[in-house]
Amino acid sequence: MTTYKLLVLPGDGIGPEVMAEVEKIAAFLTYEGLVKFEIEKGLVGGSAYDVYGAAISEDDMARAQEADAVLLAAVGGPKWDQVPYENRPEAGLLRLRKDMQLFANLRPAICYPALADASSLKREVVDGLDILIVRELTGGVYFGEPKQIIDLGNGQKRAIDTQVYDTYEIERIGRIAFELARKRRNKVTSSEKRNVMKSGVLWHEVISALHTREFPDVELEHQLADALGMQLVRRPKQFDVIVTDNLFGDMLSDVAAMLTGSLGMLPSASLGERNATTGARKALYEPVHGSAPDIAGKGIANPIAMISSLVMALRYSFNLEDLADRIDRSIAAVLEKGLRTGDIAGGAQNTISTAQMGDAILEEL
Amino acid sequence: MTTYKLLVLPGDGIGPEVMAEVEKIAAFLTYEGLVKFEIEKGLVGGSAYDVYGAAISEDDMARAQEADAVLLAAVGGPKWDQVPYENRPEAGLLRLRKDMQLFANLRPAICYPALADASSLKREVVDGLDILIVRELTGGVYFGEPKQIIDLGNGQKRAIDTQVYDTYEIERIGRIAFELARKRRNKVTSSEKRNVMKSGVLWHEVISALHTREFPDVELEHQLADALGMQLVRRPKQFDVIVTDNLFGDMLSDVAAMLTGSLGMLPSASLGERNATTGARKALYEPVHGSAPDIAGKGIANPIAMISSLVMALRYSFNLEDLADRIDRSIAAVLEKGLRTGDIAGGAQNTISTAQMGDAILEEL
Ligand SMILES: CC(C)[C@H](C(=O)O)[C@@H](O)C(=O)O
Ligand SMILES: CC(C)[C@H](C(=O)O)[C@@H](O)C(=O)O
Repeated sequence: MTTYKLLVLPGDGIGPEVMAEVEKIAAFLTYEGLVKFEIEKGLVGGSAYDVYGAAISEDDMARAQEADAVLLAAVGGPKWDQVPYENRPEAGLLRLRKDMQLFANLRPAICYPALADASSLKREVVDGLDILIVRELTGGVYFGEPKQIIDLGNGQKRAIDTQVYDTYEIERIGRIAFELARKRRNKVTSSEKRNVMKSGVLWHEVISALHTREFPDVELEHQLADALGMQLVRRPKQFDVIVTDNLFGDMLSDVAAMLTGSLGMLPSASLGERNATTGARKALYEPVHGSAPDIAGKGIANPIAMISSLVMALRYSFNLEDLADRIDRSIAAVLEKGLRTGDIAGGAQNTISTAQMGDAILEEL
Repeated sequence: MTTYKLLVLPGDGIGPEVMAEVEKIAAFLTYEGLVKFEIEKGLVGGSAYDVYGAAISEDDMARAQEADAVLLAAVGGPKWDQVPYENRPEAGLLRLRKDMQLFANLRPAICYPALADASSLKREVVDGLDILIVRELTGGVYFGEPKQIIDLGNGQKRAIDTQVYDTYEIERIGRIAFELARKRRNKVTSSEKRNVMKSGVLWHEVISALHTREFPDVELEHQLADALGMQLVRRPKQFDVIVTDNLFGDMLSDVAAMLTGSLGMLPSASLGERNATTGARKALYEPVHGSAPDIAGKGIANPIAMISSLVMALRYSFNLEDLADRIDRSIAAVLEKGLRTGDIAGGAQNTISTAQMGDAILEEL
């Protein structure tokens, strides 16, 4: 049996709490002989800064590069608000994405029927919702240069950020979106602001050409990013796969996630190019939710998004579909029993803790 | 009685239809001696391109600069998809904003109680919602240079957009937000992505300093733009005034507008600096909705957002609060009677036309 190297980065806030539940489950899977994990642990974000003075150490970066998959919980919190820009908690996450070249961020927005009432939207609008947002993750305004603040004197400063996209960057993320759509409902919505941004013009051109050339069988539509934001709120079920750039993807995937009422349930995968010889690809898995400093340390965070991130690793990195399905079924069963952490309880009284939720899923397994 | 010069730009799609209702009302107000308008008419967007080969003529630009207020309906449509970038319909609108220096875009997101059921959100989440989004409109990635596509050879192109913000640009839009908050519920939420963008770092710094220096009595909070997108969906009533940059404002105001279910009802104002001597300011008023090419020419569009844009002009440009209130009451009365255009009918059968809605409001007046 192959041994998979997992690098586990709990990060900040509720990170360590939700990651502890994943570790329980990973240990159980190994113990049962269902999969063999070799687990290493590292630091990222504010917790890395506190120890190393950097949001991730060179050592942990090297281990991430060698791991078969990285699991990350969340970074950031008010404790590090005064930390210099280059060392802020988010810099660790951004460096992982950039140095590992994880250009494809897959963010499913799924509304679990059992949780539809936790949504602020009407049940009929979101019940059964299943969107996949494919966000470009290593380009755009996140990494483009110049990115600086210039002192102009007289109390005036000028801040500059640069959005840069090359044809090949748009093409490779587009390809992933079309390929995934083929396994789903065969529809891709591409989104940019081509009426205002040159990168939007190029994005539209490259996705359209790729569609004609390689994926004429997939339905393609284009929606401006602001219009797409509206349509997500109005009639989200019209979408299957949405492909968009780094910054629009950041916002639109958060809006989409919040629609479902299942935010504490949603994982994400960030993938690199496939190695032409081995077929393996670098990968990082993390929940869509953040580090939630306001509830950190209370043991009440929902560990399901983090556990589902492990499930995504089983699917996308290790090809263990059956095992992934089995964990998914256990999660569904626990929800059907009515077990809820606070975030998905819709105001109900008897909620369970982070650890109890982890244990309940383990028990089902 | 002062005569106010109005420049009316119906634009494309449903623009001319909804503007016709405003012209009816303006004519009535003049006839009744309630206000004196001198109305000129011009072209903008695709309809200007068809005549002049540019999205706005020099002549109309000059008239806009001289008008006391400009009313614009909407621009754009698939008919002009192949028009060169510099002449696309949106270029006319962007030039008006930039050349008239309309840096402050005010976008109210109000949920009319009578229409709350038209929202995709639960009634209790949006009923009574009243947010004001203050969007910076002449800076950021919309206008920053370089903004270009470079041919790299080998089938590769590189697209570049530049987000630029200077201290004074952030300060003046912040000041407007704080001043407006004082007349409302005294709370400002400032939004950027300072964890990723240098312009976000400067934005946060300038707004915070301005708050301490000039508006310590107003409550200020900061939310990252992605988190704000989520919170708008989850619990929109937590907000009063939201101040943000051009691109985030574009998306967030559209999401906020769609929450209300009253999209066809929402106007916006774009204001310039006040003239130190006369106190007057350049201003353009337009609905939040677009040109809706799919329903153009059918006479079914909702004219209320356009009429409310005239109401905003009465308030912000002409200081005619009583008259503005009177039209607002007429709109409310018409809605209370159950009269609805298709967009706000929530699927009901007996809807009325654009012209019937305009007439009904006139009758109330
Ligand atoms: C933490 C932050 C840098 C990050 C981003 O903006 O990409 C987060 O919001 C996300 O969506 O993963
Ligand atoms: C038409 C377009 C250029 C414009 C914008 O992006 O600003 C519109 O979406 C708006 O919000 O007024």
